[in-house]
Amino acid sequence: MNIGFVGLGRMGANMARRLKDRGFHVTTLFDVDRTTTTSLAAELSAAACPTLGDVTAGADVIFTVVSDDAAMRSIFSGDDNLLANAAGKLFINCATISPQVHMEVEQLASGVGAETLEACMASSITQAREGSLYLMCAGREEAFRRAEPLLNELSSSLRFLGKTGEAAKVKALVNMVMNINTAGLAEGLGLGHALGLDLTMLREVFSQTGAASRVVQTDAEDMQNRDHATFFSAAHASKDSGIALALAEAAGLDLPLARATKDQYERMTREGLGELDKSGIAELTFPDRHAKRS
Amino acid sequence: MNIGFVGLGRMGANMARRLKDRGFHVTTLFDVDRTTTTSLAAELSAAACPTLGDVTAGADVIFTVVSDDAAMRSIFSGDDNLLANAAGKLFINCATISPQVHMEVEQLASGVGAETLEACMASSITQAREGSLYLMCAGREEAFRRAEPLLNELSSSLRFLGKTGEAAKVKALVNMVMNINTAGLAEGLGLGHALGLDLTMLREVFSQTGAASRVVQTDAEDMQNRDHATFFSAAHASKDSGIALALAEAAGLDLPLARATKDQYERMTREGLGELDKSGIAELTFPDRHAKRS
Repeated sequence: MNIGFVGLGRMGANMARRLKDRGFHVTTLFDVDRTTTTSLAAELSAAACPTLGDVTAGADVIFTVVSDDAAMRSIFSGDDNLLANAAGKLFINCATISPQVHMEVEQLASGVGAETLEACMASSITQAREGSLYLMCAGREEAFRRAEPLLNELSSSLRFLGKTGEAAKVKALVNMVMNINTAGLAEGLGLGHALGLDLTMLREVFSQTGAASRVVQTDAEDMQNRDHATFFSAAHASKDSGIALALAEAAGLDLPLARATKDQYERMTREGLGELDKSGIAELTFPDRHAKRS
Repeated sequence: MNIGFVGLGRMGANMARRLKDRGFHVTTLFDVDRTTTTSLAAELSAAACPTLGDVTAGADVIFTVVSDDAAMRSIFSGDDNLLANAAGKLFINCATISPQVHMEVEQLASGVGAETLEACMASSITQAREGSLYLMCAGREEAFRRAEPLLNELSSSLRFLGKTGEAAKVKALVNMVMNINTAGLAEGLGLGHALGLDLTMLREVFSQTGAASRVVQTDAEDMQNRDHATFFSAAHASKDSGIALALAEAAGLDLPLARATKDQYERMTREGLGELDKSGIAELTFPDRHAKRS
């Protein structure tokens, strides 16, 4: 079985590295950034494909790890796309995108005799490299069974949630809640700092009380130390909260916390902070860090 | 040493029961609800005091566990108050109130030769009964040392944070962040329900991913099952977020998540849901639970 990858950001690249380590044949690679493509191709002894059609031609199973709905639609229906001569191929789609786009892509693929599987990742770069991703899959069960041996090498937790779109819904909700918790934590630490509290003590108290959360573990120290090296960018956080809010709007629900959170992440982008890690939201809430007020 | 209690809600009553169990002399009790007072007095073989002055007269150390700033000011400066003939007495103040009021009370007590200690509790009713509270203390260190043997019997975690007001600040921040996480969780589960997702699955995914938080453990199942038996009421959540927001305003900080959260809890109160547990906020976010829209 030959494996292709489209989208060679740190997640996609690390998944490819992991599969190569585990003895799989990673054969064809593509990224819009040609330098990234050739560099990883050299590292993995794979082909740096000039077109998406070449990725499909040289692989049986193709992972797609792109950034958003527009990129996903483009790789499956642009002038050069993955579905040329794609009969029998399996596309494992890992991007955090709208459920609707997963359904569109499934239909397009099905039209040419190809299979698709959503495999939404609720983990980060380190887990991709170590094969310990939290993976939530959806689609046709046959596609899941076909992908399972590969996905087992990539994940420490693997779930099949049902029909196409379901995993993307759950992923959107996970990130919506995570982003709310992150924005709330930044407010707590920012106010704590304004009140003259010892933030190392405050983080410890948060971690031991009703304020405890995963993001206290992953983001609180970075917020205190202004270490916003990007694992998950503010721009991505804004996009993901936006997916959830669009689903809420379609369902007739008003979600004020999710809205306030998206507003904060959009404000980061407006102020040129969108490429900071999501922990960078603390730059908005600490009194001495932020000159501009909107 | 004789011990008095003022404020016999479930927290205060359980702390009194715990100290009695551990061999301490709980001698004088007072609550504005006279029935509660006489009932607990009978249970603990203590005096049901008709006045606050009587509580102080019959005890060396007096715990106060009242509901808000106004109640706290009233018991220390009303016509009948705890400071009559209070020289040498120690008041251990456990209510979640504004730091400023702790400072006012310390000054009043100091004026009559009495000591005060803040002992803010970041735990709930069960922990009060079992002596496993998370206690954060502040005030003069001598007062803390005097209280320590008692507080050790009530807590599994005991911290001294510094001068009067510091523990109340930390407590306000803990509850502010907890309330944000709770409101965000309610939005996640409400939207999940609207999207037709299995909420038991969704809760499990939340608990294993970046959405994980203490409130996923304590409140998510109750939100799903509409079990809003009160441990910590929505009205209290609103009050506590309000304390934090007042501190933020004084510091010149705008905290949009904390504001949105307080708005939701105030809306519960307006709609007659203020005495539900804080998990009742899900009644606002699940589409089929809520007829009124504001």
